[in-house]
Amino acid sequence: MRHPKLFPLIISAVIFLNPFSLQSQMLGFTEESAVVQKKLEAQFDGLLQAGNLGEWMKQLSAHPHHVGSPWGKANAEFMAARFREWGFDTRIETFQVLFPTPKLRQLELLEPIPYRASLEEPPVVGDAHSAQTDEMLPPYNCFSVDGDVTAELVFVNFGVPADYEELEKMGVDVKGKIVIARYYGSWRGIKPKVAAEKGAIGCIIYSDPHEDGYFQGDVYPDGAFKNEYGVQRGSVLDMPLYPGDPLTPDYGAVEGAPRLAREDSPTLTKIPVLPISYKDAQPLLAAIGGQVAPASWRGALPLTYHVGPGPAKVRLKLAFNWELQPAYDVIAVMKGSTYPDEWVIRGNHHDAWVHGANDPISGMVAVMEEARAVGELVKSGWRPKRTLVYCAWDAEEPGLLGSTEWVEQHAQELKRKAVAYINTDSNSRGFLDAGGSHTLESFFDEVSHNVQDPQTGLSVFDRWRARQMVDGKPEPKEFSLDALGSGSDYSPFFQHLGIASFNLGFGGEGRGGEYHTANDTYEHYVRFKDPGFQYGIALVKLAGRLSLRLADADILPFEFGQFTATVSGYAEEVMKMADKQREQTEKENRLIREGLYKAAADPAKTFITPAPKAEVPYFNFAPLQNALASLQKSTTAFEKARKNVLAVQQQAALNQALMGMEQQLLRKEGLPRRSWYKHHIYAPGFYTGYGVKTLPGIREAIEERQYEEAQEQILILAEVLASFTGQIDQATALLQQGQPPAEALGK
Amino acid sequence: MRHPKLFPLIISAVIFLNPFSLQSQMLGFTEESAVVQKKLEAQFDGLLQAGNLGEWMKQLSAHPHHVGSPWGKANAEFMAARFREWGFDTRIETFQVLFPTPKLRQLELLEPIPYRASLEEPPVVGDAHSAQTDEMLPPYNCFSVDGDVTAELVFVNFGVPADYEELEKMGVDVKGKIVIARYYGSWRGIKPKVAAEKGAIGCIIYSDPHEDGYFQGDVYPDGAFKNEYGVQRGSVLDMPLYPGDPLTPDYGAVEGAPRLAREDSPTLTKIPVLPISYKDAQPLLAAIGGQVAPASWRGALPLTYHVGPGPAKVRLKLAFNWELQPAYDVIAVMKGSTYPDEWVIRGNHHDAWVHGANDPISGMVAVMEEARAVGELVKSGWRPKRTLVYCAWDAEEPGLLGSTEWVEQHAQELKRKAVAYINTDSNSRGFLDAGGSHTLESFFDEVSHNVQDPQTGLSVFDRWRARQMVDGKPEPKEFSLDALGSGSDYSPFFQHLGIASFNLGFGGEGRGGEYHTANDTYEHYVRFKDPGFQYGIALVKLAGRLSLRLADADILPFEFGQFTATVSGYAEEVMKMADKQREQTEKENRLIREGLYKAAADPAKTFITPAPKAEVPYFNFAPLQNALASLQKSTTAFEKARKNVLAVQQQAALNQALMGMEQQLLRKEGLPRRSWYKHHIYAPGFYTGYGVKTLPGIREAIEERQYEEAQEQILILAEVLASFTGQIDQATALLQQGQPPAEALGK
Repeated sequence: MRHPKLFPLIISAVIFLNPFSLQSQMLGFTEESAVVQKKLEAQFDGLLQAGNLGEWMKQLSAHPHHVGSPWGKANAEFMAARFREWGFDTRIETFQVLFPTPKLRQLELLEPIPYRASLEEPPVVGDAHSAQTDEMLPPYNCFSVDGDVTAELVFVNFGVPADYEELEKMGVDVKGKIVIARYYGSWRGIKPKVAAEKGAIGCIIYSDPHEDGYFQGDVYPDGAFKNEYGVQRGSVLDMPLYPGDPLTPDYGAVEGAPRLAREDSPTLTKIPVLPISYKDAQPLLAAIGGQVAPASWRGALPLTYHVGPGPAKVRLKLAFNWELQPAYDVIAVMKGSTYPDEWVIRGNHHDAWVHGANDPISGMVAVMEEARAVGELVKSGWRPKRTLVYCAWDAEEPGLLGSTEWVEQHAQELKRKAVAYINTDSNSRGFLDAGGSHTLESFFDEVSHNVQDPQTGLSVFDRWRARQMVDGKPEPKEFSLDALGSGSDYSPFFQHLGIASFNLGFGGEGRGGEYHTANDTYEHYVRFKDPGFQYGIALVKLAGRLSLRLADADILPFEFGQFTATVSGYAEEVMKMADKQREQTEKENRLIREGLYKAAADPAKTFITPAPKAEVPYFNFAPLQNALASLQKSTTAFEKARKNVLAVQQQAALNQALMGMEQQLLRKEGLPRRSWYKHHIYAPGFYTGYGVKTLPGIREAIEERQYEEAQEQILILAEVLASFTGQIDQATALLQQGQPPAEALGK
Repeated sequence: MRHPKLFPLIISAVIFLNPFSLQSQMLGFTEESAVVQKKLEAQFDGLLQAGNLGEWMKQLSAHPHHVGSPWGKANAEFMAARFREWGFDTRIETFQVLFPTPKLRQLELLEPIPYRASLEEPPVVGDAHSAQTDEMLPPYNCFSVDGDVTAELVFVNFGVPADYEELEKMGVDVKGKIVIARYYGSWRGIKPKVAAEKGAIGCIIYSDPHEDGYFQGDVYPDGAFKNEYGVQRGSVLDMPLYPGDPLTPDYGAVEGAPRLAREDSPTLTKIPVLPISYKDAQPLLAAIGGQVAPASWRGALPLTYHVGPGPAKVRLKLAFNWELQPAYDVIAVMKGSTYPDEWVIRGNHHDAWVHGANDPISGMVAVMEEARAVGELVKSGWRPKRTLVYCAWDAEEPGLLGSTEWVEQHAQELKRKAVAYINTDSNSRGFLDAGGSHTLESFFDEVSHNVQDPQTGLSVFDRWRARQMVDGKPEPKEFSLDALGSGSDYSPFFQHLGIASFNLGFGGEGRGGEYHTANDTYEHYVRFKDPGFQYGIALVKLAGRLSLRLADADILPFEFGQFTATVSGYAEEVMKMADKQREQTEKENRLIREGLYKAAADPAKTFITPAPKAEVPYFNFAPLQNALASLQKSTTAFEKARKNVLAVQQQAALNQALMGMEQQLLRKEGLPRRSWYKHHIYAPGFYTGYGVKTLPGIREAIEERQYEEAQEQILILAEVLASFTGQIDQATALLQQGQPPAEALGK
């Protein structure tokens, strides 16, 4: 308007500078840059070699390589050397983390028929790696406390709170007992946590063949599933409280950092806990008497599942080496040409419970191949606009220790510089499985259309869509990202710092029972998971595009329409949940009050009518609804404004505003009773572990029947959303400093 | 109106003669007769002795007593003698029925690892009866054809049509194969029927521990459930075509009756079929390869369930003694004082597969105790107004032979004289479980409030209601009768002749795996089913009240409001089903057409996209809806008119009209392809067996995608309902000849 004469010139320059002006192009890229980027991606794809993935997997999973093991250190050094070769500025950052390993493991059935659990995973015919028993950590649950307990057994199904409600109805109390729970149904760490809350003095976790043994398919080595000896190792750290080193909450576990006394750490278990195979579980379960377990509790062992307590009586004796171990995080940096202080971070862990061919090496080798190709591109003259940081985390298995300590150590810098974090872990044949920040959902959707499924030649989006529709879900228009809970290294980035994150992988057609056992080997992987590493390559293409586009975008491809719709959906869910809880509580209280429970129960069995529950109040959801209405309005304004044309400096300012966006969804006070978790849209469930709780403050308060807290959390979330909306408005203001496209075009 | 002076006199006489005038009283009884009846029932209850039930059970189940066995005959004679002692005019009616018994049973796994099935049920420690192996029929499926077949095995889950659709998707064809199906999921006779339709040449049925073995509870003798050797015997006659003697359809199998040649009988199986234990099934299932069975198909054996075909190869060789055997029906009559030609019929079968303590003796001894008490009442001076007929049927187990032949033999007389048929069979601890004609639902509801549950002291209605509500069903206002399918002796009365029927029993807390095995013994019964026979007595009280009230009612307690509501509900269901099938067909055809099935399938496994299905047309349901509207109108008019006061002769005429009511729901042509089944509201499913199909003509035509037939059947049902409505109108006309209550009261 002020410089009409310049219009013709500006127009041609300006159209290409508006990364949102042509929707058929690439989100965040001008038409011109999109052409360049497509070419770059074709070049990138051309560099990829499946053989590398196989070779590196063979190398990295040649020996057990848990935290503190010689092979773990060797792997870190091997990878660092490769990154350096490929042109990355590479360092190994070392943290000293608490990592207990077994000193003594003993489990005996004392009554009625003595049995001593073997607790061993013998070698499997045809799998040489499974014979490296000397180098392996034996099966155990990491961060179990030491203990020597003897008591009657109670079978508690998955060991989640609802299971204990059932037991109470059956008149079964676990106080002073040892519980035996089956794997699955919750993250494993929940099982001893809830057991201890209910008064149990010990916890055994076993792998029922129903979940990942012969019930699911043929067992190893005939098939992929867990044989009778397989034991799932794994952490039982109270990660929903905080992940990372239990002794250094909130700050990096560098040498000399202040440390909590072990007995003061709140994330260790309260009772000893041990995982066992179904071969060891069978005599224990067979010896339990009492009522027959509810139908949904019964597994696939050839016995009648009873709940106890007793007559089975067991002794569980555990002792650990409580040592600090070095965790080696490999950090490889490719500095950005234009925005060196904007970091796109890509990571995967490298430590394993045993050989970890699938978990984590299948994902790790995809990161390596991506980095190698990036290095090649750089050698050929290209350079990312933003800095690319490739990370190989150590000590993920015990509880995201390597990534969490690094994030805590570099928190201030990361908050300023991180654009996004892209995580992978295990990978196998099948369907795209992805979770992440919904501010990046449209961006992700676009990429999911640009990568081919190796088996069908469809885009990975189309194959995912087919699966959704065959499963009876509504036809998806866009790829929908799952909300992120926990279970891999995105958690500190995302929920602690508010860095927009992805967690990606393929899967569903490479199922097995090898997870965290001595059978997660190269042999197992290439027979059952991804023979030929075609899905490994698909993962490189997918994650590589995300990294490269985030690195090179003119304007960062954040978008708020999908986010607003998604969060509004969560709010609907929470409101419905409150209504449903109210209805069900009324219904159940009536069954209690009118004696209907008692009347329907079999008088020949113990049945304890539960106590009536407090009535569920109506909540004032208006603050949340108003905040969502404002968010919607601001989102619409942003979408309108982003058609404007920006000068390069304006773009830089906008990118800075967009980078800080997700951080607005955090509060420094964190969630109730777990201040480490600061994100107010997504958190791992306090009683589900990995399983996500969206709008966790409100949702968990209602679930836990803390109604005052629920009302408080509604207000808090409304404030959080208002702050986020304010940031959108600032971004919109920056956009409004640009040229409206109509004027720019002279209309 | 015409005799005003008589009013005061008439009023007092008349009020007491109107059986519907006071709803708080007994349906069908004047206030005065209700008082008498209540007194009678109290007297009846006072006569009952649980000890009799135990003693008779011990006697009748002392030895195996299948059709044609010496103990079967002795039981018939024992019961006939008791009925005679109790004052009944008693006869044994004998029919000559086809009853094949095993001559040769052989099942071998030939490949990959030879195994010869034992096919035996060895004695159980602590159960002397189980040791009477010489007297037992060994495990077999009655009415299997002879055969000697060798082929690869295919596991077909329950062996219902939907299972074969799954197999087709997996590329598995059973043509020329032998199938192995698990019990449950359908009536057993459906399994070989569908297998033969699909081209299989043999059928094995086994009891998976998931259904009634260790998965459900401890096994016999420790608990009630099926041990590894238990085999469920049972008929595989094509009962959904017609029950009864396969050689004499539609008429009594008396000596000298014309008989079909065996090879011309349509109800025998087309292929040989044999039931086996899970001990015998396990090596067979373990030897099957091919794809892993879908999750819902997998049972509780400790193996991976595959579908095959092969490499397991079996030989099944069966030969039977194809002999006619005498079936002894015991018929005991207590002639009615007022309406001797109106019969209330009460029955239970007496034959068993082995000892049959539960099935059928637990029900049979309740019939006996009821009859004994009736005999005592008669001896004390009372006499039923209507004739009571007590029946002990033989040959129910092979396919309702005893009852069906009797009903066919006496069809004309029964159509004229039968008021209702009350059936029982097995009985155990728990909840009232009752099905029947909805024209008698209000009557039944009333009785269900008048009998106490022995364990809780609540009425059996209230206990049933508590169960419904705890199970999350809506609060029931009345007892709701299940629709009757098949599986016991009510079928010929109800579905062939249109005699209003009940089928009753208690259950749900006496579950076990003894059904049709050598473990259904007195020992098993008194430990697990109904120790003390308290539910046996509750059954006598319940069925006894039904018998006595039907025998003594001033006006028969038929009522049409519940019937009309129920049938309207069925019509809604059928209309919704058509809509749902239309939607699902469209959805599925899209998945096929757009290649989504293929895209979602694992390319590493065989997947055959099914052929698209014909589109589901919209049906003209208007004739049915109009017929229901008329029915509702007539029902309302009847309800209004039945407040009128009738003279005794008018009552008699009304009772005659009401007795014929249910017969109006029949058509002499019967259902499509199965003319024996004439009832158009209820039938056993052609592909479910025992499981009921309501509005069967329409429902099954839609389910089978026979859309022209569905439309025809809508018209036919409309006609049937119109005829029923006409009969209601006739009853209403009779009522309208009486005195309106207001006038009668002089208002």
